[in-house]
Parts: sequence; structure tokens; C-alpha cells
Amino acid sequence: MTSALEHFHPFIPAGGVGSRLWPLSRADAPKFLLDLTGSGSSLLRATYDRLAGLSAAGVMVVTGRTHAAAVCAQLPELSGRDLVLEPSPKDSAAAIGLACMLIQRRDPEAIIGSFAADHVIEPAGAFQEVVREAVAAAATGRIVTIGIPPTSPATGFGYIRAGAALGLPDAPHAVQVEEFVEKPDEETARAYVAGGDYTWNAGMFVAPASLMLRHLAASEPELYAGLTEIVEAWGTLAQDEVVDRVWPGLPKTAIDYAVAEPAAAAGDVAMVPATFTWDDVGDFAAISRLNRVDPESDSDVAVLGRNSRVLADSSTGIVVSDTGRLIALIGVQDIVVVDTPDALLVTTREHAQRVKDAVNSLKLSGDTDVL
Amino acid sequence: MTSALEHFHPFIPAGGVGSRLWPLSRADAPKFLLDLTGSGSSLLRATYDRLAGLSAAGVMVVTGRTHAAAVCAQLPELSGRDLVLEPSPKDSAAAIGLACMLIQRRDPEAIIGSFAADHVIEPAGAFQEVVREAVAAAATGRIVTIGIPPTSPATGFGYIRAGAALGLPDAPHAVQVEEFVEKPDEETARAYVAGGDYTWNAGMFVAPASLMLRHLAASEPELYAGLTEIVEAWGTLAQDEVVDRVWPGLPKTAIDYAVAEPAAAAGDVAMVPATFTWDDVGDFAAISRLNRVDPESDSDVAVLGRNSRVLADSSTGIVVSDTGRLIALIGVQDIVVVDTPDALLVTTREHAQRVKDAVNSLKLSGDTDVL
Repeated sequence: MTSALEHFHPFIPAGGVGSRLWPLSRADAPKFLLDLTGSGSSLLRATYDRLAGLSAAGVMVVTGRTHAAAVCAQLPELSGRDLVLEPSPKDSAAAIGLACMLIQRRDPEAIIGSFAADHVIEPAGAFQEVVREAVAAAATGRIVTIGIPPTSPATGFGYIRAGAALGLPDAPHAVQVEEFVEKPDEETARAYVAGGDYTWNAGMFVAPASLMLRHLAASEPELYAGLTEIVEAWGTLAQDEVVDRVWPGLPKTAIDYAVAEPAAAAGDVAMVPATFTWDDVGDFAAISRLNRVDPESDSDVAVLGRNSRVLADSSTGIVVSDTGRLIALIGVQDIVVVDTPDALLVTTREHAQRVKDAVNSLKLSGDTDVL
Repeated sequence: MTSALEHFHPFIPAGGVGSRLWPLSRADAPKFLLDLTGSGSSLLRATYDRLAGLSAAGVMVVTGRTHAAAVCAQLPELSGRDLVLEPSPKDSAAAIGLACMLIQRRDPEAIIGSFAADHVIEPAGAFQEVVREAVAAAATGRIVTIGIPPTSPATGFGYIRAGAALGLPDAPHAVQVEEFVEKPDEETARAYVAGGDYTWNAGMFVAPASLMLRHLAASEPELYAGLTEIVEAWGTLAQDEVVDRVWPGLPKTAIDYAVAEPAAAAGDVAMVPATFTWDDVGDFAAISRLNRVDPESDSDVAVLGRNSRVLADSSTGIVVSDTGRLIALIGVQDIVVVDTPDALLVTTREHAQRVKDAVNSLKLSGDTDVL
């Protein structure tokens, strides 16, 4: 197990604006760059810190060129070779495939770990223990996902159907994965949760780089060929020319379709269940959960943001503000107020998922200055 | 009747911040200086225009020194002698008493009219007709109030109990006033409205200046003496010295206690019922009523303010904004959002009356920069 960890190369695909968190999240201030827990750290910084202790090889970050400066500012210790910049968003298969190839070039025996940049996980120690077990399971030649035991019949996540225990000595909790299933309707989700065989798919993968790439080559040969051409030029004088020529034409697809689902069908996927709490901070209802009302305060309104000045009378909910404006709430329940210099959102926890639709409306109406 | 109108001198006591309309209304931007109907005119300007056509003598405005510049900017035709400045707020009896004395000095036969600066009245023609009738009734030696036929059992207004018709030839609708009654509880208000003898007291008075002053002298001799000293010095080199010395010590009391109630008890008060619509714009629920949703729009949210950018999804209520910020409402009902550069209010129409309590809380907490 120690030797497997020596070859462990975690990376963080940091893309995605997180438009359900508009107007806090913006094209130039994506969710992973924000501190959504009041901890003082961005989600990316916290993700990086959780992984840094696990790997001597360092942690790679794959992000958009437009975020390079912000990522470097948040991760000053990130070396140049561990910052991989995409010219444009190409969905997760391209980003993860590129990282796998670059890591495999460094270490042919590499076991990669792909971890989302914008989830909240507590405590770090439990997370690291689970990842160590996933690395041990991956060393037996498997793509290992970390399943989140469901706490509700959520319809916003995909699910993982578990099979038999694998009985691996260094990964005692690892089980076979029968299949990944898409976001279910509520009735189906209830059945999943009641049955006990299903966990949430949080998109975390630990696997030999070679196995990831074998499945990618088989299911997405065009993407695989393009990435191969890019990686051959990577670090040479031709890098920029090749990246700028090849990247725009790469197929856009998700790693779930390109690798996870076909690998599961081939019997190559295992799952280690999480023993930590996990939140994908998918909307302002989540932010409200993660920022509990200060028990010292006599208010029922949680407040996130420096400089916030909130007067709450007979109100419940959450205020997010960095503007320094005084915000008075009177007689509003379960309210969500997000106050930024150029845009204001007023909704309720119940309607928090619909923020994404509002962002789409703003795109259509041409109000792109606030996106 | 024509000769009575020749002696008609209307004035507008323009005081009162209107703190139920915070954060729109401020100490330096009181309610009467705001355009709350989307008409392009402030309430003061509209009040002045309604009265200007009634009087050859001009319209006097009594306001605080701090508002002099703003009042002059809104009423550029106001002559210097018609702008009466109070060094500090002293409630309505001092302001109205001072105006009565200054007017009586100009015209011993003056019939004054006192009209609040911050009410919405439509249409102006009906208002002017009622005022003409009140002037005719006042010329018979009465203090005449204009009663608003109640449209609901409101508990936020005082009421006027009417007696017998007076049978005045030039004021056919004038009736005796039996008494003024304070703001009732809801049960009492229902009985008032059902009985038919009660109208709302909108604080409008038309009366011989001499009669107003006779009652003031009797009930508030100290106030009367102080105002007399001030008016004797008014327009002389001693004016500023006398005003600054005497004004601060004047008793603070309302015209209702100082004049209206004792005059009614003496049988000196009449009432002419309004035939116009009247709204005291007492809170944001009123602003919502006065600014109906644009029937051309497919939104159920009324919007007040230049530069407003509102995206409403499954929401009802009103947004007041002059900041140019984009405001997104998602799934909020009967909401009131008031967006200003340094303060934001989020409440509901139902809780609009409680805004005043929030302002008091801000005073106590020392957040006076936003008041």
C-alpha cells in the first residue's frame, strides 16, 4: 500500500462557473475560487490542502487560461508544471484525459486521483483515509470511485449501484460497482435510498492512469488522438501552436460517459464508501446549511461575507454580502439575499435551484455584464 | 365666494422624514421630496401644483432649514417670502401657527389652507372644487377640515365624527364636526366605517387665520407668545437673532391638540367630504398600490425608479431601485425590495408598516449613516 501511494498523483479539474450560485459566482469568479463556508479559504484552496498531504508528487490543477492568475494567487506553492491550462472549456473528459496523459508521462505506474475543486468535505482526516483505501484498491487494477452514502432521496445527483465486496486486504471496504445511474426522479431516488445498494456519485475517481486512458482510447478515439498529439508537444517549443490548433476541435464529453460507464460495464470499477460528510454546495440552500446561524446571535439569519451589516426582524434565511451596505430584512422567511456591487438576488431556499434558469434568462436578454 | 377665494392663502408644512419609507426616505431626502408615483414629480411639487391654481396670493412652504436648497430646486418659482424655514422640527402647531401669523400680517382677512406635502390626491380638479367649498365654509367663520370617506377600517388614521348639515349656500356639503377621534382599534374602526358618520382625518384645514390663532392663543399661550415675538421681528435685521433665540424653546405639539380638538369642542369646526382619491403613501404597501404592474409587461412585479433592471421569475410585489444594479427575484411573493446605494430593504407588503421599527433599531444601534 505504501508503494501504491508513492505513485499517487492527485489532480483537481477546476472548471465550471457554478451558475446556481449567481450573482456570487461569475464567469471571472467561478464557484471554486469562492469562500462559501466562511472559513477564509476558497473551495479550491481547501481541496488542494486536503490532497497535498496524501502525495509526495504534488497536486496538479487543470483550469481555464482565464483563471490562471486567480488560481496562482490562491495556490502560491503550485509549480508551473502542475498548473495545466485549458484554452477553452471542453467538459471533463478532455481535462481529465489530459491530466492522466501528462501524469503518465512522468510516472508510467501512476495512480491518478481526480477530485472536484468545488465540494466541501469534512473532516480532512477521514477523507484522506478513504482516499488511501481507494489508492490501494486502484493498485489492483481498478477504477475506484468514492461513493457518498445518501442522506436524502436527492434527485440532483447520479447514483452508483454497488455489488459484492471485493475482499481486498488493503481496501477492506471496497466493493464492485455494477453500474452508474443517471439522476433519478424522486420515486426512484426513494427506492435507491431505501434499498441500501446505492451511493451518490460525487465524481471522484482514483485509478491507474493507464487504465483510465485505455478506456478513453476505446470509447473516444478522436479525443484520445487529439490529447496524444497535445501531450507529445507539451513542454516543447511547439506546445502553444499544437494546443491552439488541436484543442478547439476536441470532442466535448463528460468523463462519466467516456470512461466511468463503459469501465463499469466491463467490470473494471470499484467503490469505497465515504466516511466523511460531503456537500457539493449546489445552490444557496446548501450555503445556508453550511453557514449555520451563529448560536451567539439572537437572529435566525445566517450571514456570510466580510463587511456585512444585517438587521433582521422576524426573518429567517441567509444573507451573503461583501458590499458593506446595510441590509434590513423584515418579516421574510427562508429568504436568500445575495448582495453584490452590480447584481442582487432575492429568492428563497426552496427556489434556490432555479437560480440557474435566471442566469440563462440573463444570457438570452443580453444582460451579460452581470454574468 | 369669489371674494373669499381672493383672501385664500394656502400653505404646505413640509416636514417629516417618512421613516416607514426607509431606505428611500432619509433625513436628507424626506418623503415629500421623492417621486413615489413614477410621475416625474415629487409629492411636494405635485401638492404645490394642485394649490397654485387656487390662489392669486401664492403658496407658502414651511420646511426645515436643511431642506431649503432641495425645496428651491423643486419649486424654482417659489418667492423668498413664501419660503419659511424652521431652524429645527417643532411639530405641526409651531409650523402652522407661524404660517398663520405671517399670512395674517399680509392680509388680516386671510383664509389659510394647510395641506400636507406628502399625500397623493387625484384628480386635481375634484380637489380644487372641494377646497373652494371649504374656503366658502371657512368664510362663515369656521375651521373647515376635508374628510376622506373611508374605504377600509384603517387603524392608522384619526377619524372625524360628522354632525348635522350646515346648509351653507356656497358650501352645500359642509357639515358640523362633533369631534376628532384618535386612531382606533380595528373593531372600533369597523364600527366607524359601518355607521357612516365618520371620515378619515387627512390633516387638511381651511380657516380664517384669525380663528386659528384665537384657538392657538387660548390652548398654547406660550407657543403663541413665542411665535408672536418671532413674527414681529420677521423681515427685520433682528429676524435671525430672534428666531435663533426663541424657536428652540417653543413647545412641541401637534395642531390637532393645539387647535382642532378644542375648536371642535367649541363648535367651530366644519367638514367638507372629499370627492377625490387620497393616499398618504404611508408605507411600501401604498407605493405598491400607487405603482401598478405595467399591464404591457408579463411580470407581476411593479418597478419604480429610473435605471431599474429587474428580472422576476414567479414573483409578485414591488422593486424600488435607482442604483442601476440588476435585481433578480425568484419565487418570492408580495415582496418589497428597496435598493439604494448604501442600504437595502427586503420585506413584504404585509410587514411594510414595521419599517419604522427597523429605523428605530438602526438609531439605537448607531447605524445612523444610513438614516
